[in-house]
Amino acid sequence: MMHFDRESIEQLDKRYRVNLVNSSAGVKSANLIGTVSKAGEENAAIFSSVSHLGSSPALIGLILRPTIELERHTWQNIESTGVYTINQVSKDFVENAHYTSAKFARSQSEFVECDLASEYIEDFSAPFVRISRIKLGMQFLETIPISHNNTSLVIGQIEHLLVEDELVTNEGLIDLALAGSVGVSGLNNYFSLDNEVTLPYARPEELPKFSFKG
Amino acid sequence: MMHFDRESIEQLDKRYRVNLVNSSAGVKSANLIGTVSKAGEENAAIFSSVSHLGSSPALIGLILRPTIELERHTWQNIESTGVYTINQVSKDFVENAHYTSAKFARSQSEFVECDLASEYIEDFSAPFVRISRIKLGMQFLETIPISHNNTSLVIGQIEHLLVEDELVTNEGLIDLALAGSVGVSGLNNYFSLDNEVTLPYARPEELPKFSFKG
Repeated sequence: MMHFDRESIEQLDKRYRVNLVNSSAGVKSANLIGTVSKAGEENAAIFSSVSHLGSSPALIGLILRPTIELERHTWQNIESTGVYTINQVSKDFVENAHYTSAKFARSQSEFVECDLASEYIEDFSAPFVRISRIKLGMQFLETIPISHNNTSLVIGQIEHLLVEDELVTNEGLIDLALAGSVGVSGLNNYFSLDNEVTLPYARPEELPKFSFKG
Repeated sequence: MMHFDRESIEQLDKRYRVNLVNSSAGVKSANLIGTVSKAGEENAAIFSSVSHLGSSPALIGLILRPTIELERHTWQNIESTGVYTINQVSKDFVENAHYTSAKFARSQSEFVECDLASEYIEDFSAPFVRISRIKLGMQFLETIPISHNNTSLVIGQIEHLLVEDELVTNEGLIDLALAGSVGVSGLNNYFSLDNEVTLPYARPEELPKFSFKG
């Protein structure tokens, strides 16, 4: 086992530390956040910090670093329009999605630069990523500052959930493996997903005989 | 495309809604949170809401539902001792890890009931999951209430990062596929991870010719 304590983590080379810490908490989701400015300039940005907060109400969280210019563009659009989209990234357009993280000028649209078509639905002003198979239209609710590292938790409610028919099981589950959804670790390592196992609701009186014994 | 708006999401059958919303934001990490009470009772609980908040300082977030009895046990231990562990779940013990979500009595230890051995390191009082290949010893910093659904964001700093030597690349990245780490969607669907692609740092002047064109 390698063992890094707090002090030795702080003393690591920056790139090594970012990779190590970033991958230590496990796989992350990969989503494109779609926004538009009041002036109509579209923006798309890949985020690995999108996470489910609850299903009733249907809330999604997003960690934003407002001090990073790229993320600030997304934040400014969310703040001024109150809406954004979350578009799940699949294998077939992972390269396009990844390159939205390049520092384009404010006037450039990542949709254009990265060959990703946008699309709109009625009565909702933020752009979706057309090719994405699982997309959310979000209403911004609140931003909560995280003082320890100057980031923010952006909380939104799902207004629209769009998903390709064949991906949804009779029980409502979206099959992420069938969708070709990817996961991320570190800044640029993408994983494909395979269905490993579906386990029953756990009850103390119905414990299985575990094949692994610790 | 299936299209659910906010109202139709609220009217879905509960189980269907939980599955649908929970899987709509993409794959989640699977980690066991290890804690111990002041009286020495060990607790282990699987969480899919662990997420990276930043690498300098090295911060990890965790969404907790204090109204759920199982999660309250974890929270009470974190609050009273100030420390906890985050242990990444791999394929070989995913079943053991999953069953920690059963409603055991407060006096029962999930380590014992689910055949997971605990282990300790010097000068750190929370129990680690011995079999886990990637483990974090955490110092609790702050809890931030999320009023919209009565959950909390629990923020902690990494005090100890333990990882098997062969999983770490020269650049500091932990190979989650090699570790056999799993992802989750919904409440009980586990994925294995395969390395799909590693992409370079993105620069606007170095865009590739994209194989997908939207």
